[in-house]
Amino acid sequence: MLGELLDNVRQRHPLIHNITNYVTVNDCANILLACGGSPIMADDIGEVEEITALCGGLCVNIGTLNARTIPAMLCAGKKANELGHPAVLDPVGAGASRLRTDTALRLLDQVRFAAIRGNISEIKTLALGSGSTQGVDADVGDAVTADTLEETVRFAKGFALKTGAVIAITGAIDIVADGDRAFCVFNGRPMMGSVTGTGCQLSALTAAFVTANPDRPLEAAAAAVCAMGVCGELAHARLGGLDGNASYRNYIIDAMYRLDGDTLEQKANYKIV
Amino acid sequence: MLGELLDNVRQRHPLIHNITNYVTVNDCANILLACGGSPIMADDIGEVEEITALCGGLCVNIGTLNARTIPAMLCAGKKANELGHPAVLDPVGAGASRLRTDTALRLLDQVRFAAIRGNISEIKTLALGSGSTQGVDADVGDAVTADTLEETVRFAKGFALKTGAVIAITGAIDIVADGDRAFCVFNGRPMMGSVTGTGCQLSALTAAFVTANPDRPLEAAAAAVCAMGVCGELAHARLGGLDGNASYRNYIIDAMYRLDGDTLEQKANYKIV
Amino acid sequence: MLGELLDNVRQRHPLIHNITNYVTVNDCANILLACGGSPIMADDIGEVEEITALCGGLCVNIGTLNARTIPAMLCAGKKANELGHPAVLDPVGAGASRLRTDTALRLLDQVRFAAIRGNISEIKTLALGSGSTQGVDADVGDAVTADTLEETVRFAKGFALKTGAVIAITGAIDIVADGDRAFCVFNGRPMMGSVTGTGCQLSALTAAFVTANPDRPLEAAAAAVCAMGVCGELAHARLGGLDGNASYRNYIIDAMYRLDGDTLEQKANYKIV
Repeated sequence: MLGELLDNVRQRHPLIHNITNYVTVNDCANILLACGGSPIMADDIGEVEEITALCGGLCVNIGTLNARTIPAMLCAGKKANELGHPAVLDPVGAGASRLRTDTALRLLDQVRFAAIRGNISEIKTLALGSGSTQGVDADVGDAVTADTLEETVRFAKGFALKTGAVIAITGAIDIVADGDRAFCVFNGRPMMGSVTGTGCQLSALTAAFVTANPDRPLEAAAAAVCAMGVCGELAHARLGGLDGNASYRNYIIDAMYRLDGDTLEQKANYKIV
Repeated sequence: MLGELLDNVRQRHPLIHNITNYVTVNDCANILLACGGSPIMADDIGEVEEITALCGGLCVNIGTLNARTIPAMLCAGKKANELGHPAVLDPVGAGASRLRTDTALRLLDQVRFAAIRGNISEIKTLALGSGSTQGVDADVGDAVTADTLEETVRFAKGFALKTGAVIAITGAIDIVADGDRAFCVFNGRPMMGSVTGTGCQLSALTAAFVTANPDRPLEAAAAAVCAMGVCGELAHARLGGLDGNASYRNYIIDAMYRLDGDTLEQKANYKIV
Repeated sequence: MLGELLDNVRQRHPLIHNITNYVTVNDCANILLACGGSPIMADDIGEVEEITALCGGLCVNIGTLNARTIPAMLCAGKKANELGHPAVLDPVGAGASRLRTDTALRLLDQVRFAAIRGNISEIKTLALGSGSTQGVDADVGDAVTADTLEETVRFAKGFALKTGAVIAITGAIDIVADGDRAFCVFNGRPMMGSVTGTGCQLSALTAAFVTANPDRPLEAAAAAVCAMGVCGELAHARLGGLDGNASYRNYIIDAMYRLDGDTLEQKANYKIV
């Protein structure tokens, strides 16, 4: 089933409008191309509505947000809603500064997202809705592991119900949930955390999958999460004795370029709860 | 002849001022270094005139333009004109939003460019001069293929005559024209379209070639286009079974680093019409 | 001794706040991850104080400075001082425009830096304090070579004394000095100059080393400089016949990912004067 969702991305070439950070933007563009999508990056308020209208989906990433781009994010998000285009939110660093937390909360308040992808700290910051400034990991619990899985699944489903968005919490185990069901995904490798932007790439990918599979947002987001994890595994198997995180970065994107629906189908490792 | 133009880049080390997008800027810097040039990126209006004056040539790329950088682009372009430095325009996404189209038209109106490089949609948007907002491919004809070659050559020559710039239209077949003559270039590989920023890199490269060969802008731009295509071919031949678009990106820049005049001379595949 | 300083980075995982340029930011993030640190990039004045407070150290790089980010740099630097967090300055292009020179001088005037890393031209521009606009290499002497080493060491020690910062001047030979002692570092390869951002990466690395080794800023900065040079050598040894500057870029970061304290200890090539 997940394989078919990737095939749809490859056949429908969704054009994705990215308002994203300048740290990982090149990798986001290349992984979108790798999966069969097509990227446009545009963040000026004078053009974001038109660019969103031109595209099939939108990905808003607050990784290097600033006073100029925040209104553009809100504006693009509203336009996407108006047109019925799926929008994905990556609340990078929500909880690390008041500006990030407040911006993420404003986006949540004013825009309906098809999916929200972040780590457990970022998502909990959104769910607590406090707007208070905290350290990246403060007050937001531990990594998602076998022990905390059940509790985190319950939390993710609840937040999905509240927001109407598919919630993707990525970490050692990834959880992708709507109000009813959750995919617990066991793909991926710890070394992915040593490559800057694997989370950002996954958010862009999620936008492509959700856009190409508009009727199945939960499955589409789960397919994106599995695909990223499978590529992390395939790329890891390719690492030679001198390779480090820079080559790993390239190999992950390479693996996405080569990934087909059958391989995703075979290698995706998840359970639905 | 084209080989000599590359040799000139390697000997003269042209310093290129880039006002460019944040998606592909790192690759633009590395391909400039790879060809023997040297990059400076600077986009604040408080310094662009000085930076342009310091450099031999200018490359203006509107890929992630914004309200802050547009005046800087105009300002740098005028300074380059004043000093007789060649300026290159890459009208990324002209036609995709009114802001992009209008900015490209303002740049064309206020700055004399030595060369303009874009895809057929972008260049046609500039030539129509409509300023109306269109989809990336709307109203701007098909890809350049054997069937449409003659017509596109005529169009390119006409637009070159009108603007005084060498016009480089890149696609399946690339056309590089001044008012009199056109190089039709058959180098390159379709997979280059799966790497973000090969067009941006080519524009930066064109600035380096035109700057190092000031008396022959047509031949210099054609040499840059052939060099990029040849590197796309050499890099493609190097791809292994696990490589995808990320490794291809690196191999293209690597190939430029290794390219010498003789190889360019031998592998350049073009006709002049 | 230097090996231990790297081990401390790997054990203490310093979180580094980077206000840096958009050209090389991705490589800065990946090399910080490679050495065992952790990067956060944030440049909006509305959040830089909080982000600096959250981190252990700060790296300010003026490579693509603009009117919006300059106040953020000053603000973050003052906050780092207030909290006793080490701050590193990379005065990219000081001397190339009045804006860069003036900004670097303002930063020097208002912020106490633990370390300043630049090429000889940039550092001399700061030391002359002229604020006049010059070409990148004008009036600022030659590359650091065996012939000019003694004089440059004297200059570096003097400037270290004046600023209270460790001064790292990188080039064919690198000099890392406080008011008393200087490390002359002979590691590295000339081809590192063909990769955009090796200097920026080294500045980020220096911030990580100084943050993880707060009591030994001179040795920490020297260890960072040696580590970068050693990685440049290891990566160079790995280059195949088709590799160029793009693969070299990746191999350098890969080498940092694999570098351990013993290897750094064995391969570091320096004398203390």
